[in-house]
Amino acid sequence: MIKVAVNGYGTIGKRVASAILAQPDMSLIGVSKTSPNYEAYQAQKMGMSLYVTKESAKEFEEAGIKVKGVLEDMIREADVVVDATPNGVGAQYKQIYSSMGKRALFQGGEKANVADVSFSALCNYDEAVDKKFVRVVSCNTTGLLRTLCTLNKMSKITKVRGTIVRRAADPKEVKKGPINSLIPDPASIPSHHAKDVNTVLKDLDIVTMAVIAPTTLMHVHMLDITVSTSVTREDVLSVMKSTPRILLASSKSKVGSTAEIVEVARDMGRNRNDLYELIIFEDSISVKGNEVFLMYAVHQESIVVPENIDAIRAVSGFSDGRKSMEITNTSMGIRTGYLV
Amino acid sequence: MIKVAVNGYGTIGKRVASAILAQPDMSLIGVSKTSPNYEAYQAQKMGMSLYVTKESAKEFEEAGIKVKGVLEDMIREADVVVDATPNGVGAQYKQIYSSMGKRALFQGGEKANVADVSFSALCNYDEAVDKKFVRVVSCNTTGLLRTLCTLNKMSKITKVRGTIVRRAADPKEVKKGPINSLIPDPASIPSHHAKDVNTVLKDLDIVTMAVIAPTTLMHVHMLDITVSTSVTREDVLSVMKSTPRILLASSKSKVGSTAEIVEVARDMGRNRNDLYELIIFEDSISVKGNEVFLMYAVHQESIVVPENIDAIRAVSGFSDGRKSMEITNTSMGIRTGYLV
Repeated sequence: MIKVAVNGYGTIGKRVASAILAQPDMSLIGVSKTSPNYEAYQAQKMGMSLYVTKESAKEFEEAGIKVKGVLEDMIREADVVVDATPNGVGAQYKQIYSSMGKRALFQGGEKANVADVSFSALCNYDEAVDKKFVRVVSCNTTGLLRTLCTLNKMSKITKVRGTIVRRAADPKEVKKGPINSLIPDPASIPSHHAKDVNTVLKDLDIVTMAVIAPTTLMHVHMLDITVSTSVTREDVLSVMKSTPRILLASSKSKVGSTAEIVEVARDMGRNRNDLYELIIFEDSISVKGNEVFLMYAVHQESIVVPENIDAIRAVSGFSDGRKSMEITNTSMGIRTGYLV
Repeated sequence: MIKVAVNGYGTIGKRVASAILAQPDMSLIGVSKTSPNYEAYQAQKMGMSLYVTKESAKEFEEAGIKVKGVLEDMIREADVVVDATPNGVGAQYKQIYSSMGKRALFQGGEKANVADVSFSALCNYDEAVDKKFVRVVSCNTTGLLRTLCTLNKMSKITKVRGTIVRRAADPKEVKKGPINSLIPDPASIPSHHAKDVNTVLKDLDIVTMAVIAPTTLMHVHMLDITVSTSVTREDVLSVMKSTPRILLASSKSKVGSTAEIVEVARDMGRNRNDLYELIIFEDSISVKGNEVFLMYAVHQESIVVPENIDAIRAVSGFSDGRKSMEITNTSMGIRTGYLV
């Protein structure tokens, strides 16, 4: 059993913790939290061990939340720490993980140089095997890489031009906007997503542009991918249909928007209506000469969760990436083929 | 004086009517309206002559709105009819305009074959001169064409790949959505915008993808334009800075979103906070080899208004497009250079 600690119990941390509990080969030492909010109460109710910083212990006690120990106690017990602290904070914790001799995963909000390798399971599982520090790329980059590494198997990609319509805030957030605006983010080109893809696919010619839209459910990407050989729409459909962690939203099912995709997740009984899969709008898959066009939606809260699980195995020395993904997919109910 | 009648007094019709009143060489015969709503009251207050269909005359009378006559009376008095009826309805009126021997403009919601020529002033004013029926392309297509015909002067465009983030509804609409979703519209590729650009730039290799976002203010386009010669960012900036009906939003002014652009229009004292100009985010202008990238915002309610005014002159035989645009720009306060 791989003993895992989750440092940070927010949007990503709580999902990774739930996913760890579902793995046959992992155990959850506990989760750490900095403030005794509703998520801390919920973690306690679910029977997770809570660890806090020394400074916040009293606050938790006053809130009636039982604490198992301080952060360092949790890290000491673990083989691997999943850092799910806010953007940029992970780098500050690296020193602690390192001094305690622990392997650690960081999230995409950290700079790439925080880790030995940036990770996307379908692209470069092998590179992460036995590494000390691995960074799981962000939700948007995970969406891009999952698509590109899948297509790359069919025909070598020579150029990618993409635009990203980003969700403004997560559903739980109450302080972010916009409410009624479109914000180029950044206005400069390329957006950081292209550079982040290059941390994994190092020599790829990729340019991305991004805009924020007032919605909370999912991101949408629109890609124009140039490949080195002539392919057909059927080739693309076929590879997408048979790749795990990718689902197709068919027009037949009348799923034509992010709202309807999330409604399907709710109807499917998914925890927190999470969608670990990339959701490609089937009708959007088009081919013109050597260019493949497509549009897909990315569930920003959960798409990186299975990637974290695989990365835990990789840093622990589990060398069979395909097998790791199979275990992750089975344990989490992650599907292949059509959404509906 | 060119005598103009405006059939339909909605989002576009009311703006075109206001713009006609500002022209030194045009007179407004009147506007037609089908229901006695707040816009009809406002038109009456502004002293415009209202014409209605025979069937709705009684309804207007009961609402206390004075009617000058029926639709046919208005058309009879006019040299040119601007059809601003809802999408697809214009084609039904064409028979009436034709049988009464009138020249007419249609809007972009009509199919291209409703008219002899699809029109964008900077691209093909000359083609519309003396034509009987002209279709002013839609707001998004106007934005695309204004950009492409401007860049084309600098270096011949060989390929365009673009994505369009569409506003969900106009500010006045109360029955449309989405409220919290992104909708590929259409999911299939290319979107109709590429085809519509081809009604004016007939041989251009262009592919567009479009998604609807929950916002009401403006559309945003993200373009990747391949040109036939090597150009610099400064070349692009320079041509954009000196082209009328295009404004640059500089990062120095801290205008970085559609909400802030519209706020500037309000502060400028623009009628209805209209922005007849294309607003390019200056920081987005980038060059990579022969590719020019940029992002801009399109005010969907008003960008086609100056185009309608120029088209009125063109169909009336005014052959100097540059002069027509100058008159339109001066009369409407349309600017060149920087937004702020």
